[in-house]
Amino acid sequence: MPALLDAQALHDQLALHGLIIPSGLPGAYGRGAAFEHVIERFDALVMRSDEGKRAQRMTFPPIVAREMASAAAAGQRWEHGLDITDGMLVPAACYPVYPTFSGLLPQGGRTVTVLGWCYRHEPSIEPTRLQSFRMREFIRVGAPSLVEAWRDAWLDRGIVLLESLGLDARSDTANDPFFGRSGRMLAQSQKEQRLKFEIMVPVMRDRAPTALCSFNWHQQHFTGKFGVVNHDGEPAHTACLGFGLERMAIALFATHGFRLRDWPASVRALLEIDAAIDDPAGAVVKQA
Amino acid sequence: MPALLDAQALHDQLALHGLIIPSGLPGAYGRGAAFEHVIERFDALVMRSDEGKRAQRMTFPPIVAREMASAAAAGQRWEHGLDITDGMLVPAACYPVYPTFSGLLPQGGRTVTVLGWCYRHEPSIEPTRLQSFRMREFIRVGAPSLVEAWRDAWLDRGIVLLESLGLDARSDTANDPFFGRSGRMLAQSQKEQRLKFEIMVPVMRDRAPTALCSFNWHQQHFTGKFGVVNHDGEPAHTACLGFGLERMAIALFATHGFRLRDWPASVRALLEIDAAIDDPAGAVVKQA
Repeated sequence: MPALLDAQALHDQLALHGLIIPSGLPGAYGRGAAFEHVIERFDALVMRSDEGKRAQRMTFPPIVAREMASAAAAGQRWEHGLDITDGMLVPAACYPVYPTFSGLLPQGGRTVTVLGWCYRHEPSIEPTRLQSFRMREFIRVGAPSLVEAWRDAWLDRGIVLLESLGLDARSDTANDPFFGRSGRMLAQSQKEQRLKFEIMVPVMRDRAPTALCSFNWHQQHFTGKFGVVNHDGEPAHTACLGFGLERMAIALFATHGFRLRDWPASVRALLEIDAAIDDPAGAVVKQA
Repeated sequence: MPALLDAQALHDQLALHGLIIPSGLPGAYGRGAAFEHVIERFDALVMRSDEGKRAQRMTFPPIVAREMASAAAAGQRWEHGLDITDGMLVPAACYPVYPTFSGLLPQGGRTVTVLGWCYRHEPSIEPTRLQSFRMREFIRVGAPSLVEAWRDAWLDRGIVLLESLGLDARSDTANDPFFGRSGRMLAQSQKEQRLKFEIMVPVMRDRAPTALCSFNWHQQHFTGKFGVVNHDGEPAHTACLGFGLERMAIALFATHGFRLRDWPASVRALLEIDAAIDDPAGAVVKQA
């Protein structure tokens, strides 16, 4: 297992191996074939973890109606950029899902899964800090006890999944990046109520461990706004969890090496990796 | 084969069968599992058509640096919306590829393929007129005669491919939507020089046939801007072709029916369709 690199070196090694393709826009690089292959195979592994395939598959384009995003957003941080059309870019893949829930839920609630592109205006050379990236998310809506138990089960499952891929994964409570004094209070309350968890893995030696998977328990935040009630007339809760797919791929490359053929056989087998997809080393960089 | 529907009825039938998921934003609906499955299988079929898999696979997020888009754009129509960040949404999947070409090309030039989300601010109930959609594109750069022959071969291959899927496909010269009097002259010149072709298929009875595949021969437009020359020092050309993946799926559903199990066996076999993925009819619509 190679020693962890710092952010700039990790960026340069990813580019040198043709895994990422510099685009002139920080946090918006292209992805090479091997990088994409890892993402596809990890997503397939996560989908196999959804036992019985009970989650309904949905896919959304990376834009959402402004009024919906406004209703859905806990903070206002992503709205300033796009007030000239009716759409805005989604900051999380699950945003378009909540407005599709309304009225009376079936018994047992519902489970949905989406794979979507997300947008964050956070330009950085740090290769896991992306302006545009993919999330595989699962969303649960139903009775509060069901939703909390589902979140807890996926938190355990997520750690086991990442450990099975040779990653040094641990979970902790977390908070969203709220701003200002009232923001600090929101963040504190979010932590105290254990509403947000993250699974983190060391990726760069000059950075804190990177969050690869995020769990949010919204309680009645969305079900209240969109008028969703349980089959028994009681209030419904929602929770979601999302795997950051580019972050997963980068954590795997940083941990196991930049060429798929160098990865441990157990990890390649679990992901059904085709090592023949290795990008031609430096093919892109030489021309860039 | 069912008779073609009008635009509103096609939208409603797609929604009724859970193939699309209304999102409150015209041209930005969600996609159900069966719809996605068709897109995945068609994309796999197209990739198998790239004989010998010579095209280098790249994937880009749906944003591109403003200065690049500005250099790459033939017209200026997509730029007005996003002048507060350094990025803008890509109107075509191939845009981020051209700036990765620079300097001396290898003998025989290069071929790249990308699958990407595109953005067009064209809100409409007409279900093939999307604000955000996917394109599978192939991009060729090299000697002018090579590039033109490659474009012609793919034009033939594209028609055969769509006919093999039971679609009534025909090609014609076309032009981009330039505006104003000078725009009309640009459009006329584009047609006369046979720079743009489209493959069209009837999808709705109240509309002209829908372009499913588009071919653009840019000649020295990009190679001049990005300083790309052939291995022999002569000027290089580029051309691209793109399949609109949501349009393909909709053309197939409109032609063969809204349930995968009703499709002709030959079409299902060619696409390797798993009819078990049929979305639960009306499952989403009942709750929307």
